[in-house]
Amino acid sequence: MRTRCMLLILLLLPVPTLAQGTGKAPVSLQTEECLDCHVISTPGIVKDWQSSRHSRMVPAQALKKEKLARRISSESIPEALTGVVVGCYECHGQNTDSHADSFEHNGYTINVIVSPVDCSTCHAVEAREYSGTKKALAHGNLVGNSLYMTLADSILGHKAWIDEGFSVAVASSNSLHETCLGCHGTRVEVRGMKTMDTDLLGEIQIPDLSGWPNMGVGRINPDGSLGSCAACHPRHSFSIEIARKPYTCAQCHLEPDVPAWNVYKESKHGNIYLSMKEKWDFDHVPWVAGQDFTAPTCSVCHNSLLTNPDSEVIAERTHDFSSRLWVRLFSLIYSHPQPVKGDVTIIRNDDGLPLPTTFTGEPATGYLIDEAGQESRRQKMTAVCSGCHSTDWYMGHFAKMDRTVQEVDGMIHTATQVMQSAWESKTADDSNPFDEAIEKRWALQWLFFANSIKYSSAMTGAPDYAAFKNGWWELSRNLEEMKELIDLKTRSQESGVSK
Amino acid sequence: MRTRCMLLILLLLPVPTLAQGTGKAPVSLQTEECLDCHVISTPGIVKDWQSSRHSRMVPAQALKKEKLARRISSESIPEALTGVVVGCYECHGQNTDSHADSFEHNGYTINVIVSPVDCSTCHAVEAREYSGTKKALAHGNLVGNSLYMTLADSILGHKAWIDEGFSVAVASSNSLHETCLGCHGTRVEVRGMKTMDTDLLGEIQIPDLSGWPNMGVGRINPDGSLGSCAACHPRHSFSIEIARKPYTCAQCHLEPDVPAWNVYKESKHGNIYLSMKEKWDFDHVPWVAGQDFTAPTCSVCHNSLLTNPDSEVIAERTHDFSSRLWVRLFSLIYSHPQPVKGDVTIIRNDDGLPLPTTFTGEPATGYLIDEAGQESRRQKMTAVCSGCHSTDWYMGHFAKMDRTVQEVDGMIHTATQVMQSAWESKTADDSNPFDEAIEKRWALQWLFFANSIKYSSAMTGAPDYAAFKNGWWELSRNLEEMKELIDLKTRSQESGVSK
Amino acid sequence: MRTRCMLLILLLLPVPTLAQGTGKAPVSLQTEECLDCHVISTPGIVKDWQSSRHSRMVPAQALKKEKLARRISSESIPEALTGVVVGCYECHGQNTDSHADSFEHNGYTINVIVSPVDCSTCHAVEAREYSGTKKALAHGNLVGNSLYMTLADSILGHKAWIDEGFSVAVASSNSLHETCLGCHGTRVEVRGMKTMDTDLLGEIQIPDLSGWPNMGVGRINPDGSLGSCAACHPRHSFSIEIARKPYTCAQCHLEPDVPAWNVYKESKHGNIYLSMKEKWDFDHVPWVAGQDFTAPTCSVCHNSLLTNPDSEVIAERTHDFSSRLWVRLFSLIYSHPQPVKGDVTIIRNDDGLPLPTTFTGEPATGYLIDEAGQESRRQKMTAVCSGCHSTDWYMGHFAKMDRTVQEVDGMIHTATQVMQSAWESKTADDSNPFDEAIEKRWALQWLFFANSIKYSSAMTGAPDYAAFKNGWWELSRNLEEMKELIDLKTRSQESGVSK
Repeated sequence: MRTRCMLLILLLLPVPTLAQGTGKAPVSLQTEECLDCHVISTPGIVKDWQSSRHSRMVPAQALKKEKLARRISSESIPEALTGVVVGCYECHGQNTDSHADSFEHNGYTINVIVSPVDCSTCHAVEAREYSGTKKALAHGNLVGNSLYMTLADSILGHKAWIDEGFSVAVASSNSLHETCLGCHGTRVEVRGMKTMDTDLLGEIQIPDLSGWPNMGVGRINPDGSLGSCAACHPRHSFSIEIARKPYTCAQCHLEPDVPAWNVYKESKHGNIYLSMKEKWDFDHVPWVAGQDFTAPTCSVCHNSLLTNPDSEVIAERTHDFSSRLWVRLFSLIYSHPQPVKGDVTIIRNDDGLPLPTTFTGEPATGYLIDEAGQESRRQKMTAVCSGCHSTDWYMGHFAKMDRTVQEVDGMIHTATQVMQSAWESKTADDSNPFDEAIEKRWALQWLFFANSIKYSSAMTGAPDYAAFKNGWWELSRNLEEMKELIDLKTRSQESGVSK
Repeated sequence: MRTRCMLLILLLLPVPTLAQGTGKAPVSLQTEECLDCHVISTPGIVKDWQSSRHSRMVPAQALKKEKLARRISSESIPEALTGVVVGCYECHGQNTDSHADSFEHNGYTINVIVSPVDCSTCHAVEAREYSGTKKALAHGNLVGNSLYMTLADSILGHKAWIDEGFSVAVASSNSLHETCLGCHGTRVEVRGMKTMDTDLLGEIQIPDLSGWPNMGVGRINPDGSLGSCAACHPRHSFSIEIARKPYTCAQCHLEPDVPAWNVYKESKHGNIYLSMKEKWDFDHVPWVAGQDFTAPTCSVCHNSLLTNPDSEVIAERTHDFSSRLWVRLFSLIYSHPQPVKGDVTIIRNDDGLPLPTTFTGEPATGYLIDEAGQESRRQKMTAVCSGCHSTDWYMGHFAKMDRTVQEVDGMIHTATQVMQSAWESKTADDSNPFDEAIEKRWALQWLFFANSIKYSSAMTGAPDYAAFKNGWWELSRNLEEMKELIDLKTRSQESGVSK
Repeated sequence: MRTRCMLLILLLLPVPTLAQGTGKAPVSLQTEECLDCHVISTPGIVKDWQSSRHSRMVPAQALKKEKLARRISSESIPEALTGVVVGCYECHGQNTDSHADSFEHNGYTINVIVSPVDCSTCHAVEAREYSGTKKALAHGNLVGNSLYMTLADSILGHKAWIDEGFSVAVASSNSLHETCLGCHGTRVEVRGMKTMDTDLLGEIQIPDLSGWPNMGVGRINPDGSLGSCAACHPRHSFSIEIARKPYTCAQCHLEPDVPAWNVYKESKHGNIYLSMKEKWDFDHVPWVAGQDFTAPTCSVCHNSLLTNPDSEVIAERTHDFSSRLWVRLFSLIYSHPQPVKGDVTIIRNDDGLPLPTTFTGEPATGYLIDEAGQESRRQKMTAVCSGCHSTDWYMGHFAKMDRTVQEVDGMIHTATQVMQSAWESKTADDSNPFDEAIEKRWALQWLFFANSIKYSSAMTGAPDYAAFKNGWWELSRNLEEMKELIDLKTRSQESGVSK
């Protein structure tokens, strides 16, 4: 049914403007030509794009919106782009000189990957805000940290059974791609060109990419830029609605290590969201508290531009997702003030380890924001809370959270003392802190259980995530089992029977 | 942007009736004044209230509804309240004499917390039904039970590492607040007054509350009443729609200890709900089976007023959430008939423990409802089932459930025998039945795994919660590991090496 | 309120055609009579049916639809059925001679259970496609496999504590019904007749069925047919919308053993589905990619008839749910090519065990589809992918999946070597490979953790299911704990202290 003849016929026809668009806004001739084939070869992409604002509005119109309602942040846009809708060629045809993944395709030079730099033509502020964040740098922040890679290898490395023991390999690039880098982002490199057999065109030459496909937040793109806007604004609808819904964040922020989504959906906020969301407006800009939504989603608290019904700004839009966060709840191995910079590979704790805290809980102060910085960010967040809560309510809430962080970190300290005791007594081997069963039980304490309690506290709900579901129950139970197993092993070794 | 000047200007203006309401129903002058500031300071609350029935209808109108459609149950309402909508002051300004949390705020005496007694002005029957239930008494039912508190302390108490062993503290009030009392409810007490700095008013004096914020079902309020209506009808929308949706119940009834929501959403009923809910009417009173919904949610089975399409009552509304329940599936440590009274701290089993069953499974008969009481409640529930199922279908269903409860309780008995054997042989120490790793494994059997299977059976679906997900698989596996660990410990102790 | 008098009155009235239907299509006199009572006794069922296409359209009209839009596949339908809507009697009154569950009910002979053979009157192709599949044969595929039943017994059999050890019974039929057969389907047999007391009719005689109620995919029906269409098209709405939504598949395909739903909802596809589904058309036939939906659900990839917006077929409808699958990711104990036949009890691996692979990973080649068969199915699936993705994208995706399956199977092999070492050294007893704690830990590797990673890879998302949530983290951690526990036991046995 899909024949090359059809393509040839199409190529011979004059290309009518507006033909494949939505019929209301002008489409470039280049994009028209893309659409002619792709409406047949990948109809889902084309329809998705046709549903988008990109297909319905030209940048010149978008620029005329009043400031608070504007969805593009660049003050000026190249004239060639202002009069046509944002179609295939407008995105895939940009900056091809700096794209190692550019290639010749039916008479056009295009890029496989549209990068944040390409998007920044119209969305300059968002791209700039994002570029220096922990998210943008997520690839390097992981693979550039020797301790984290030791952990990754201990999890992902193949374990062969040789002489009644394990021979452990390093993590393969494939297993890293499927796990950590699925969220952190891969390094996409062009290995050369390859031949691909397609239905419509037969054999074509395309770039041969490593680490592909991937939409991780810190993807290293073939133009050297960092990130994938499609991580949150998938894929050709570029939807603000999807990005504002918590399912987007849930792709990576879920239990057991980062149980933000799990906690949220069982919280009071999540309850209201899940019950009432069909009546909310997820597309309105600015996003009006009480009017467009009556309970926060992730993006309400962390990054959206919010106003009250009188158009007074409650919170400015930001694509630096830490800018309203003062404490980093995520335990490494304790909670600590947010890092000063997005590049966290530079951090060294007082023991010289690439961690933001020592094993006794001392923060790596110089690398973390100070009191004033924390207070400034706290005020940005509480401004959001104040949309629906009294000052007393949210002050009480955050005071509770502070106490909880302290209590849980106290339990991490105890578990670390148990672990250190085992290392000292040689019941465990401290040459690699992650490659033994008992060491992974220690990691469970801070990597899973502590985070579950802290996130539950922060989102003021889902008490079961603080209690039984990966919470205090497991924190205490696993601590007791750690000691039991160490005792059993110690006695077994002392009894003189060697393994 | 939010200036005190604005406030002053507002205060000087005459207060127009209807100005801040929905424009259709009269608003009291006091509430108008509340709204004048709060539309600026907490717009989310105001908008939420404006979306509610409370803002659109005065009680006098509501009382005229025919009986089945009526949403207020009080036969008479103080005249001062019947002619204005139910606004800020109508709720926060009630019964201030009996509220320890009342305070002076801009010329009005108001309460921080609106309690069930306040709501009972219009919703007398619901408040009365609720007041004596296990839910209303949930705070005391936990903290007044010495055995449960021993468990709570063993989970939540800080464990310090001293001399190669743990020194265990009791649970802090903060950790109780974050976990158990998040659902059971805190005791909210007024510690005095405190100064709070606010944007609009500068420094104000407000009551200093302990155990706050909290919306647990058994919260002890500063007026001495029990409960928080906002636990299920959040927060200023007082929505019946939200209360009827299962996400509300899911805040507390979730895995691993009470996996009602988790089982429901994977069941046939949950499948139909999740697939079709956008086409249902969650606001209609009475709730018409087949017409407003085509599969039950939690509230259909447990408390809503249901009729058939001919307005014949299938089930009466109740806010005693046990009134359609005969068996308490939740294992303590076995299933048993529902308690006679909401105050379950009075229960003593035959061994004198504050538990509804003995460790061998004997029910504490005098404290639990008898056969006739069970049959009466069973009939209330099966009337709901009969809306969509033949008699044979639901009889077969409940016969299956009875068998499953018996089989699972048999497995709890075996695990308890294993535990008792360890206590007798001193492999475990029976002075505290919850503070050792092996004892927490025993608790897993009845507190997590048994409940998963029983709830899965009760909701006739989600077979994986009976099989692999915290079900029989774990029940058997953990039992085998309990024995293995006890054996290892026994041998290790016998081998003469002391720890 | 529900009196027998009412029934008598109703029975005396003339039966008006159209009275209980939707008022637009003719209803048979028999069905009218059913409805007269059941609108009172089971209003939920009647309303559900009234919402269905079955109640609104007669088969004669349905047959006139053009081929791609047709929802019934039989070319000819008995004339008696073509002119009336598909009501109670049209389904429950069919083929009563071959139904052991037929009985006399108010003057009509009807069947309790409507089977796939009954549905095949109008849906012949679907019934035929389904009849030979692994799903249809799911009951026998489980209970007819001695090894799987050994596993089932080790999980479900009651364990009594006798002489400080366990005495293990075989699985009861009740526990099998509640767990495995909840999804696989029960064998429903007629044990005789029984008396049932009903509200409307008093005591009536009905068939006494074993294994009932149940809606498992491989249910053995009293007419000898296999399956329950209501497993996916519940219950009297026969909804294609419900079947197309993933909640339906989620009833059985969920974590920890088959985490398809869990992985899907955290994937990019699931994110788009959950965010945008209210704007999709789940009822349209054929289902148009990009237009009716913009991301796949389970049924998009696995069985729906899909076209592009130009009505060109992307994928044919099938009710053989393996027909687009080449590899069986589900580890038994390794991944392997899909079986040739739906009856998988015939499979024997090279060691003579009823498994599709040996413990070293050799596939049972003769029973599994060959390279050509795999390629043919792969093309059916990739045709679906190509609706929204470039050839390079999905080729890259599946290459990644192939590598991941290989890596994970490598880890299963290592765990199996550890297990075999324990069997050889008699630290574990190999007479039953599933009944010891250490053996269940081995089963965790392939039954839970390997599947989590493989499914995550296959659905290109939810990296946490490949990483921390039952993924590589657990695969490595449990492997290390297996070795630790075996070592402890070995030493404990060697130290000469007997248990």
